[in-house]
Amino acid sequence: MILSVSEAGVVLVIAPHPDDEVLGAGGTIARLAAAGREVHVCIATRGRTDRFGPDQVATVSTEAEAAHRRLGVARTHWLDHPAAELDTEPHGALNASLGALLSDLAPQTLLVPHLGDIHRDHQLVFLSALVAARPTRDVYPANIFAYETLSETNWNAPYLTPPFVPNVFVDISETLETKLEAFALFESQVRPSPHERSIEALRALATLRGATIHRRAAEGFVAIRQCC
Amino acid sequence: MILSVSEAGVVLVIAPHPDDEVLGAGGTIARLAAAGREVHVCIATRGRTDRFGPDQVATVSTEAEAAHRRLGVARTHWLDHPAAELDTEPHGALNASLGALLSDLAPQTLLVPHLGDIHRDHQLVFLSALVAARPTRDVYPANIFAYETLSETNWNAPYLTPPFVPNVFVDISETLETKLEAFALFESQVRPSPHERSIEALRALATLRGATIHRRAAEGFVAIRQCC
Amino acid sequence: MILSVSEAGVVLVIAPHPDDEVLGAGGTIARLAAAGREVHVCIATRGRTDRFGPDQVATVSTEAEAAHRRLGVARTHWLDHPAAELDTEPHGALNASLGALLSDLAPQTLLVPHLGDIHRDHQLVFLSALVAARPTRDVYPANIFAYETLSETNWNAPYLTPPFVPNVFVDISETLETKLEAFALFESQVRPSPHERSIEALRALATLRGATIHRRAAEGFVAIRQCC
Amino acid sequence: MILSVSEAGVVLVIAPHPDDEVLGAGGTIARLAAAGREVHVCIATRGRTDRFGPDQVATVSTEAEAAHRRLGVARTHWLDHPAAELDTEPHGALNASLGALLSDLAPQTLLVPHLGDIHRDHQLVFLSALVAARPTRDVYPANIFAYETLSETNWNAPYLTPPFVPNVFVDISETLETKLEAFALFESQVRPSPHERSIEALRALATLRGATIHRRAAEGFVAIRQCC
Amino acid sequence: MILSVSEAGVVLVIAPHPDDEVLGAGGTIARLAAAGREVHVCIATRGRTDRFGPDQVATVSTEAEAAHRRLGVARTHWLDHPAAELDTEPHGALNASLGALLSDLAPQTLLVPHLGDIHRDHQLVFLSALVAARPTRDVYPANIFAYETLSETNWNAPYLTPPFVPNVFVDISETLETKLEAFALFESQVRPSPHERSIEALRALATLRGATIHRRAAEGFVAIRQCC
Amino acid sequence: MILSVSEAGVVLVIAPHPDDEVLGAGGTIARLAAAGREVHVCIATRGRTDRFGPDQVATVSTEAEAAHRRLGVARTHWLDHPAAELDTEPHGALNASLGALLSDLAPQTLLVPHLGDIHRDHQLVFLSALVAARPTRDVYPANIFAYETLSETNWNAPYLTPPFVPNVFVDISETLETKLEAFALFESQVRPSPHERSIEALRALATLRGATIHRRAAEGFVAIRQCC
Repeated sequence: MILSVSEAGVVLVIAPHPDDEVLGAGGTIARLAAAGREVHVCIATRGRTDRFGPDQVATVSTEAEAAHRRLGVARTHWLDHPAAELDTEPHGALNASLGALLSDLAPQTLLVPHLGDIHRDHQLVFLSALVAARPTRDVYPANIFAYETLSETNWNAPYLTPPFVPNVFVDISETLETKLEAFALFESQVRPSPHERSIEALRALATLRGATIHRRAAEGFVAIRQCC
Repeated sequence: MILSVSEAGVVLVIAPHPDDEVLGAGGTIARLAAAGREVHVCIATRGRTDRFGPDQVATVSTEAEAAHRRLGVARTHWLDHPAAELDTEPHGALNASLGALLSDLAPQTLLVPHLGDIHRDHQLVFLSALVAARPTRDVYPANIFAYETLSETNWNAPYLTPPFVPNVFVDISETLETKLEAFALFESQVRPSPHERSIEALRALATLRGATIHRRAAEGFVAIRQCC
Repeated sequence: MILSVSEAGVVLVIAPHPDDEVLGAGGTIARLAAAGREVHVCIATRGRTDRFGPDQVATVSTEAEAAHRRLGVARTHWLDHPAAELDTEPHGALNASLGALLSDLAPQTLLVPHLGDIHRDHQLVFLSALVAARPTRDVYPANIFAYETLSETNWNAPYLTPPFVPNVFVDISETLETKLEAFALFESQVRPSPHERSIEALRALATLRGATIHRRAAEGFVAIRQCC
Repeated sequence: MILSVSEAGVVLVIAPHPDDEVLGAGGTIARLAAAGREVHVCIATRGRTDRFGPDQVATVSTEAEAAHRRLGVARTHWLDHPAAELDTEPHGALNASLGALLSDLAPQTLLVPHLGDIHRDHQLVFLSALVAARPTRDVYPANIFAYETLSETNWNAPYLTPPFVPNVFVDISETLETKLEAFALFESQVRPSPHERSIEALRALATLRGATIHRRAAEGFVAIRQCC
Repeated sequence: MILSVSEAGVVLVIAPHPDDEVLGAGGTIARLAAAGREVHVCIATRGRTDRFGPDQVATVSTEAEAAHRRLGVARTHWLDHPAAELDTEPHGALNASLGALLSDLAPQTLLVPHLGDIHRDHQLVFLSALVAARPTRDVYPANIFAYETLSETNWNAPYLTPPFVPNVFVDISETLETKLEAFALFESQVRPSPHERSIEALRALATLRGATIHRRAAEGFVAIRQCC
Repeated sequence: MILSVSEAGVVLVIAPHPDDEVLGAGGTIARLAAAGREVHVCIATRGRTDRFGPDQVATVSTEAEAAHRRLGVARTHWLDHPAAELDTEPHGALNASLGALLSDLAPQTLLVPHLGDIHRDHQLVFLSALVAARPTRDVYPANIFAYETLSETNWNAPYLTPPFVPNVFVDISETLETKLEAFALFESQVRPSPHERSIEALRALATLRGATIHRRAAEGFVAIRQCC
C-alpha cells in the first residue's frame, strides 16, 4: 500500500489554510502516524491580523496545533503567505517557499488540495506544489495525491472546472473517530449540520467513500503522479 | 422549481432494472407524488427466468410494486427487455418501446440513469431515452435529468468514463425516510453495510448531497436538457 | 419553467461589461420582465476614462440604460471595477462587491457569463459569482446558469478551455425582436456583419438554438447549479 | 488551405445515411469540386426495403444522386450496410468495406461524421473510418475531419458525450446557396422550420460558423488527424 | 511501491490479444517477476482458425509462451473468446469468464488495456475487467492500472475518445532490454521501423516515459482504482 | 500541407522563453525555412538581470540567436516581458505587445505553447496569443497550432489540466538532426540524459511522434483554429 508503514519516507500534507488537511486527509494522517510513518503538515497561509483580527488568527493556529497532536503529526510548518490573498503575490513566491520545504524534508509522498476546489488559494497551492515537485533530478516526491475538502470541492462549477473523481481510496475505518475528534478541535471552523463543514457531513462522506470500496469508512484521493 | 407541484405534466422515471429508480430518485418521487404530481415508473428490463430463476424474477417484481406504492407512483410500466442482456438486442428495439411509451404518456419530465454507470444496460437505457426524447416536433419531454445509482455510478473508470457531477439538487429532507423504507422493501436487493446497496450508504449519500446545498438530505442529478 | 413567472423571486444577470447581458440573455430578460418577474442587471466593471476616454465610457453607460429600459430591467447596478483589468485587482475585491449585492437583493436566480469565454474579465466574474453564491446558509441563489456571449464564447481554445454546450434552452420566439432592438441601442458596440457582434449573427444564433428545441428562437445556457 | 485545390489528392466524404454529407459538408464539397478537386461520397448504409419500404429507399437514392450532381461530386459509393441497424452487424464488417474503399481510392482527405452524434450509426461509422485509416504503412489518408450534422450533433448529452467544438472552419460564402439547393433536392428529408433539418436552420448555422471567423458563411469541422 | 516485491499478492495482466501485455507492461512484468512476485497473464481472445488460419493462430500462441517465459510469467491463461470479434458476443460472456478467473486467482493487482484504445476488443476487455473487479465484497483486486499499447493507444480520436495521460510510472531501466527481447520473440507481430509496432518505437516510448520521471526507461500507466 | 511552402504567408512561432520554440517546433521551423517560408520567432520574455544575473541573460540571448540561424529563422523578436513573472503584469500588457507584433507581421500561421504546460508563463502566453489573434476583422492568423515542450508539457496534472493529445503531425525526418543541433547550441539549457531537456529525450519524442504516422521523425501539435 502506497501510504502504508511498509514504505519508507516522509509524508507531507500541504494545506492552504488550517483545517483543510484534517477535512481532506485527517483519517489517512492518523492511520499513517499510528503505523509509525513520519507525517508533516504544511500550512501555506496565515490570516493577516488586519483582515481576520489577531484573536481569530491566534485561535486557529492554536486549534491546528491541538488537532495535529491528536492526529500524530510529526511537525507543522507555517509558510505564512497571506490567507485568501494568494493571488496578490507573485506565483513564484509560493513556488519558492514550497520548494525550500521540499528540499528540507525530501518527502516521498505529497497530499495536496484539489485543483478544482472553488477557493483560489487551493488552486494556487495545488499548482505551486506541482511546480515544486517537478522530477528534474534523481530525488523528488514519488507520489502525489489530491484530497477532497468539504466546503471547497463540491462548490465549483460542474463540468466546467476539474472534477474530483476519486481513484485512490484509503481505508480509515480505524481512524475515522480520531479524524472527527481532530476536526472538532477546530471549534472556530466547525459549523452545525447541515453545513458541509459539519461533523455529520464529514461522517457521511467517509461512509460513502468507504461503501464504494466495501469498507466502513474511507478517504478518497485523486492520483496525480506515482513513480515506482 | 422544475420538479415541483407548481409545474403541470407527467413525470416519468426510467429504470434499467427494478430498484434503480428508488436508489436514484426515490426521495424525489415521493416528494413529487406527495405534492400531487403524477409520477410513472418504467422498468426497461425483466430478468429471464432461465437466467435468474422464476422465483427471483417474481420476487423482484413484487418488491417493486410494493416499493412504488410506498412512494406514491401512479403506475409502473414494464418493457420486458432482457435484463443484463440489453446489448444482445438491436439498439432500435429499446428505442422503439421507449418511444411508444413516451407517445402514450407525453411526460414533461424524464429521470434517466447515468451514461457513466458501469452497467451496460444503464448506458443503453440512457442512450435510448435520449433518442426517444429528441425534440423533432412541438411536443417532447421538456426536462431530462440523470440520477445517481449507488453500486453503478461510482464503479466505472474515473476520468475515462463520463463522471457524475451533480448540478441539480432536490431537497428530500421530508421524504428521505420514505425512500429508505421503499428501498428496504426490495429485500432481495438490499445488502448489509458497508456494501454500496445498503441503507447506511444511501443515507450517507443523501446527507452529503444535502450538505452541499445546506439541507438535511438531497438527491443529486445531472441536467441533460431543459426547455423553458 | 425555472425562469418563468410562476416562480417567485428576483433574477439577477451579472455582466462583465455593458452589453454582455443583452448578447447572452436579452431575450430571456425581456420574456421574464414581460411576465412580471423582477429582473436586475449588474455590470461588474466600468471603463477607466484614462484608458477608454470619458466620452466612450459615458456613451456606453447611456446605451446600457436605454437597452435595459427596452428589455424591462428593474434596476441596473454598477460595481465599477476596472474594465479589461479585473486581473489587476485582488480576486477578493470582486468577491466582496458581488457578495454585498447578493445580500441586498437575495436573488433566486443568477445568470452569469461563461467560464470558458476568452476574456479574462468574463472568467473572473464567473468565478467570483460562484464564490458569492456558495450555499453556506439557508438562503442563497437557488439557480445559476451561464449564458453565451457572441465574440467571447466561440473564440477560446477548442477542447482545451471549458466548452459551452447548452443544456438549458429558453424559448425567445416572442422576444427575439426586442432583444435585437436592445442590442441595436448599443450603437458603439454593434458591428456590421459578418462580425460576431452583428445583428445578423445574433439572429442566426437564436434561430439555431431555437431549432435545436423545435422553436423559432431560443437562448442557450449551461446549468451550473439548481436547488429544488 | 488544407482543403483547397492547391493540394493534390482525392477527398472522400463518408456519410452514414444519404443527406448527412450535404448537411455536414455540402458547401465544402461544392467549393472543392468547383476548384477542380476530385470529391467522392460514400454512403455507408441503405435502408432495408422491408423496414423503410422500397419506394422510400429508391426515392432517397435518387435524391442523393441529384444532390451530388448539384455539388459536383465525382462519384457516389454505396456500401449498403443496413440503415439504422449498424449495431446488428459485427464491427469488423464495416471496417472491412471501408478499408476496401480506402484501398481503391487512396484518398488524401476524409470527412467523417462526429463521434458525438446521437445516432448509433454515426458513432459506428466514425469509429470504423478511423480503423480503416490507421497509419500502418506509408500511404494513408493524411487528413481526417469530422463534420457537424444538424438533427444529430446537437441532440446528444451535453458534457457526457463528446462535444462538437469546431476548430477548422471552411469559408463557404460562395457555395452556401449551392449547398442549400442540394439539400432541398432531398425533398423526402427536408423538414419545415423550426425543425433542425430545415433550410432556415442550415442557413443560420452557416451564418454563425461564418461569423466566428468573420466570413459570411462557413462550415465547421473538428480536426481528427492531419499529417504534413 | 505499489508494484514492488514488498507487496504480497498476485498480479494479473489482462491482454485482449497476445503481445498487448508485452507492448504495454513487459518491462513491469519482468521487474516484478525478477523481484519474486507471482505474475499471471490472461489472453482474452484466440484467433478463429477460419479467419486467421490455423498456422498463424498456432504461431502466435507459441510466440506468446516463449515471450512469457522470457519475462518470468508464472502462468498464461487463455480465455479463447473470438479475436477481433468480441463485439459479436454478449458482453456478459466476457464478464463471466474474467469473473471466474478473478475468483480463482484473487489477484491483488490488475493491469488492463486502455479504454481509449482504437481496437473495439481493447475497449470491451477494459469494461469487462472493471465489471469483474467491482468491490462488492471484502476481497477484490485492490489496484487497477491501464497500460499503453503502441499501435492501439495513439490511433484513436484526439479529444473525442478517452486520452491516455500517464499518472503512474514504473522504472524499467533494468528490464527494458528483457522487454524488447520478449517482444522480438513475437516474430509474426513485430514490424520494421517506423511502424509503431517496431523495436525502435518501443524503445523511444520507454525513453520518453523514463525522461518524464528522470529515469532511463519507464512504462506509463493510468490509475483506475487503488484501495489502501 | 498547412505548413508547406506551397502556402503563402509568414509563420510566427511564439515562445515564452528562449529554447521553447526549438524544443517544440525546431524541426518544423527548419523544414519550413528550408522550403523557402519566412519564419519569425517571438520570445515573449527576457530574464531580469537582478534575478538571473546579467551573464546568464546575455548567454541565453546569444544561444538563441545562434540556434535560430541554424534553423533558418528570418528574424527574432524580443518582447522583453519579465521571465517567470508574467503573472505579475496585467494580462493586457502581453495582449498589447503580441497584438502589435501581429499587426506588423500579419502572420498566416501561429505556433504557440500549450495551455496545459506546467509553467504559468506558458499558459499566459497561450491565452494572450489567442486574444491577439481573434478573428475580429478580415485579416488575422488563419492557422494556430500549439506545440509540445519537453520539461513543461508532461509535468502538469493528468486529467485535471488540459492534456496534450497531438492531432497534427509534421514529418521532420529530414530536419531532426538540424533541430537537435540547434537545441545543442543552447549549452546553458541542455541537460544530460535522462532529464527531459536532453538530446536523448528530444530524439525519443521525435521517433515516437513519427512512428504514430509511420514516419522516421515528427513533431506533434494540437490544432487550435484553422480557417480555410
